Amino acid sequence: MNTYEPAEVVLLAHGSGGSMGHELVEKRLLWHISNATLNRLDDSAVLNGHRRLAFTTDGYVISPIIFPGGDIGRLAVCGTVNDLAMVGAQPVGLSLALIVEEGLPLRTLDTIMRSVHDACGEAGVDIVTGDTKVVSRGQADQLFVTTSGIGLLAEGTDISGSRAQPGDSIILSGCIAEHGVAVMSAREGLSFRTTIVSDCAPLNGLVREMLAAASEGIHTMRDPTRGGVATSLNEIASQSHVGITIDESVLPIRDEVYSACDMLGLDPLYVANEGKLIAICAPEMAADTLAAMRGHRLGKDAAIVGQVSDDKPGRVVMRTRMGTTRLIQMLAGELLPRIC
Amino acid sequence: MNTYEPAEVVLLAHGSGGSMGHELVEKRLLWHISNATLNRLDDSAVLNGHRRLAFTTDGYVISPIIFPGGDIGRLAVCGTVNDLAMVGAQPVGLSLALIVEEGLPLRTLDTIMRSVHDACGEAGVDIVTGDTKVVSRGQADQLFVTTSGIGLLAEGTDISGSRAQPGDSIILSGCIAEHGVAVMSAREGLSFRTTIVSDCAPLNGLVREMLAAASEGIHTMRDPTRGGVATSLNEIASQSHVGITIDESVLPIRDEVYSACDMLGLDPLYVANEGKLIAICAPEMAADTLAAMRGHRLGKDAAIVGQVSDDKPGRVVMRTRMGTTRLIQMLAGELLPRIC
Repeated sequence: MNTYEPAEVVLLAHGSGGSMGHELVEKRLLWHISNATLNRLDDSAVLNGHRRLAFTTDGYVISPIIFPGGDIGRLAVCGTVNDLAMVGAQPVGLSLALIVEEGLPLRTLDTIMRSVHDACGEAGVDIVTGDTKVVSRGQADQLFVTTSGIGLLAEGTDISGSRAQPGDSIILSGCIAEHGVAVMSAREGLSFRTTIVSDCAPLNGLVREMLAAASEGIHTMRDPTRGGVATSLNEIASQSHVGITIDESVLPIRDEVYSACDMLGLDPLYVANEGKLIAICAPEMAADTLAAMRGHRLGKDAAIVGQVSDDKPGRVVMRTRMGTTRLIQMLAGELLPRIC
Repeated sequence: MNTYEPAEVVLLAHGSGGSMGHELVEKRLLWHISNATLNRLDDSAVLNGHRRLAFTTDGYVISPIIFPGGDIGRLAVCGTVNDLAMVGAQPVGLSLALIVEEGLPLRTLDTIMRSVHDACGEAGVDIVTGDTKVVSRGQADQLFVTTSGIGLLAEGTDISGSRAQPGDSIILSGCIAEHGVAVMSAREGLSFRTTIVSDCAPLNGLVREMLAAASEGIHTMRDPTRGGVATSLNEIASQSHVGITIDESVLPIRDEVYSACDMLGLDPLYVANEGKLIAICAPEMAADTLAAMRGHRLGKDAAIVGQVSDDKPGRVVMRTRMGTTRLIQMLAGELLPRIC
């Protein structure tokens, strides 16, 4: 039973990718609508008995709606395609639901819809159904986009946050924290000059290559969006009841991103990515998986960054450059609001 | 090519179920993402080659979020189930994406999630995937909900707004305008006392009975939500290139609703419904369809209200109680904003 006081309200920190957000979802929302498919809490639901479909949804409330390297339209399409890809599915159709604030320039809407079109083209999928609502000025912030997607799974594909096993290798597909830093630089009007753009991209092509190379060897995939790599690894450690160790010295991260994070007081491990994935695979398949990833444009900087163990289930630790060990906890509260 | 001026912006009237809303969707949005499945503009997309799936999405921005007879949670589940039902599909899974304004009482969220659960139970479907975003106070109006749904179509089912044929009978499943009037009475704090509650209900059970009785005889179904019966009939007349005539004297409408509309200056033909459908079927199947509908709790007031003709394609006319003929145009501008 829920036990909160009548006066309790939703806080902005409930919207983070961190522990308060998890609490809101698990204690307040799932409680009501619990079922076996939903409770897996993977990026997409896998619906059995219908030729193995994946189904996912995500709302996008990013501010600003246009940022270096993309906009809310590209973000929504990529985010939904990626959620499907993270269970190994190729997209067969997307939906697009817009909530538009009165007064939004039609030219802006136009730019965003063109991005939707272009991102769909990159991913090889169509928007097949949609909806548009308009609310009065001041009742929304320019534009909110909710996309859903249906994907098709090949027979035998079984990828889930709950399947990481002791001994598995952890691969990161490329350099981290670029989306969050790009959005932050656009939002704050900070005077630092940066060439950093969002990494926002559809990952289904990369995943296709990975599955062709290693298929059943890949146990878990996750795209580290809100809450970053740290949060995704914590989710996996918790869902799979395993320990995770990563190595700071091999984490792919660009110097400019490192400097920008330093200046902004951000830990890149907690900053959102929108075109990267974490793959956890059987150790004997790690080399093949890595080679397949490096052969793809979106995986050229892929690296093995850690291992799964049976030590301290649910915990993520990092061996630092200085040789010490640091506990990587789930983000508590809000690092960057409205980042996706 | 789009030809608007840079200064043009989205207006509240673009959010109506009427002609401006159609213009926004067709000229500004579809233009970018056009494809054969989307362009049918039915309530759900039908995806071929995957065992005949239907896929739909809708955003809900209703104000107030709790109203007589329902709330935004019930509305979202019913609306999505109904959009699937309107192409003859039974739901196999729903998604639920919330955009929550900071400060929303958790108790309110709780009430709405319980409604989601209950409406899912009535429809016999689960929420299988979801997402939650929180935005700062003042950047949304309490709670926006976007639901998507996947449905399964029986072989041979081909129901579309473009399949109405001259000679077909037009059946309305029950009394109109109750949702809009109930929401309006809650919103305005009007002093009129009314027992009218929203008709918000999942129609997939009713549709199952109809298809069992008449299957291929049913050519078109539509749930007359935003813009009401008048707008849905105009959409069908336009998509099917047919004329439509309805009879005012047989339109099912409760006296209280009629009085309330009169007092509020609303035409019930343009007021939203959330638990009613329009079915257009071959004349020889009309009696069987009607009997099946009347045997279901949600179709007990069903009535044959008109006919399809080849006269004046694209036009909807009503024979009034006084014996005159009135042209029923698509709603222009906004009748009731934030009604669903």
